[in-house]
Amino acid sequence: MHIAMVLYDRFTALDIVGPYEALSRIPDARVDFVAETAGPVRADTGFLSLVADRALADVPHPDVVVVPGGPGTFTELENEKLLDWLRTADATTTWTTSVCSGSLLLAAAGLLRGRRAASHWLTLDFLPQYGAEPTADRVVVDGKYVTGAGVSAGIDMALTLVGTVAGDEHAQAVQLLTEYDPQPPYDAGSPLKAPAHLVEEFRTDSRFTLA
Amino acid sequence: MHIAMVLYDRFTALDIVGPYEALSRIPDARVDFVAETAGPVRADTGFLSLVADRALADVPHPDVVVVPGGPGTFTELENEKLLDWLRTADATTTWTTSVCSGSLLLAAAGLLRGRRAASHWLTLDFLPQYGAEPTADRVVVDGKYVTGAGVSAGIDMALTLVGTVAGDEHAQAVQLLTEYDPQPPYDAGSPLKAPAHLVEEFRTDSRFTLA
Repeated sequence: MHIAMVLYDRFTALDIVGPYEALSRIPDARVDFVAETAGPVRADTGFLSLVADRALADVPHPDVVVVPGGPGTFTELENEKLLDWLRTADATTTWTTSVCSGSLLLAAAGLLRGRRAASHWLTLDFLPQYGAEPTADRVVVDGKYVTGAGVSAGIDMALTLVGTVAGDEHAQAVQLLTEYDPQPPYDAGSPLKAPAHLVEEFRTDSRFTLA
Repeated sequence: MHIAMVLYDRFTALDIVGPYEALSRIPDARVDFVAETAGPVRADTGFLSLVADRALADVPHPDVVVVPGGPGTFTELENEKLLDWLRTADATTTWTTSVCSGSLLLAAAGLLRGRRAASHWLTLDFLPQYGAEPTADRVVVDGKYVTGAGVSAGIDMALTLVGTVAGDEHAQAVQLLTEYDPQPPYDAGSPLKAPAHLVEEFRTDSRFTLA
């Protein structure tokens, strides 16, 4: 199973590293980090680069595509080279997936028309303009399209996919190995649970880099 | 607040990217990814490199140190250059932290003598030989030493630290931004919860790269 993990300027690192940590442990998985040009790609905060070992053009037919989100998403929505690659790759993928605002890129490529999709809670509302149906679930599976909500949801998205592809027991083994027994010290991880004024603040004037 | 995130050959990527995603959002945080030599550093599966922008020697006095785990830990236990750097840095840190088997490196540097510490469930038993007290909690705070359990526990470790450093509300905002509302599709994330035969299999003959 050949997995292409897409990088672009100002992606959110956890969006892609969460899924990578689970999907790379599918038996016989081969993973390529890819970007328009091979080389280091800077994440959103500016402090971290991940290396794309190969250029998009060199990986035209992966079995699985994973597209992260991040503030850079909005620039890439205009990047026809990336959108074209997504269309071409999707024509032969087994699974086409995204995390966070990455679903906007799948949608902008025309791949989610009439389909339900997740996205970061702050970017869900952008999906309908591309004909996709925004769905406020953490992981949404619609045919071969598997989309996750914001940032950390990529871990749940990927573990769901590992179970489907490699079986429940293998997915449990991956969960055990990555000790994924989350115990967040707060319960503010969704707009329904966080203090309302924080949700409002993000909606009107983000103090943080939009993930 | 100057944060040094340590990389070494065959680290586990999520161990360091989980904490980075939270800690880099502390107000006025400055993050340096560091390694013995600046440049790309290969993670454990062999598919991904993160870039160390600076060499250890160039970042002698960070405020916070984060040490990831991974199968490479066992090689680094013999790396006196890294252990020396940890001792020097620790002399002036506000917080010295680790994820997963990274606590073995803090312990081998002599920093956890008489202290409680977390580690990956498969590496907890190595702590006593360095005088540390293995503690099967997800996040352990003992003085300025904050250690997390395996891989994904780094997110909980970091969010705990964000709350301590920047206040509960800021930590909640970071949790909301990263949509950290975990919903694992299985409940096998600890040796107490996973099927017993999987736990036994890992203990005797790991099918996976040890994280």
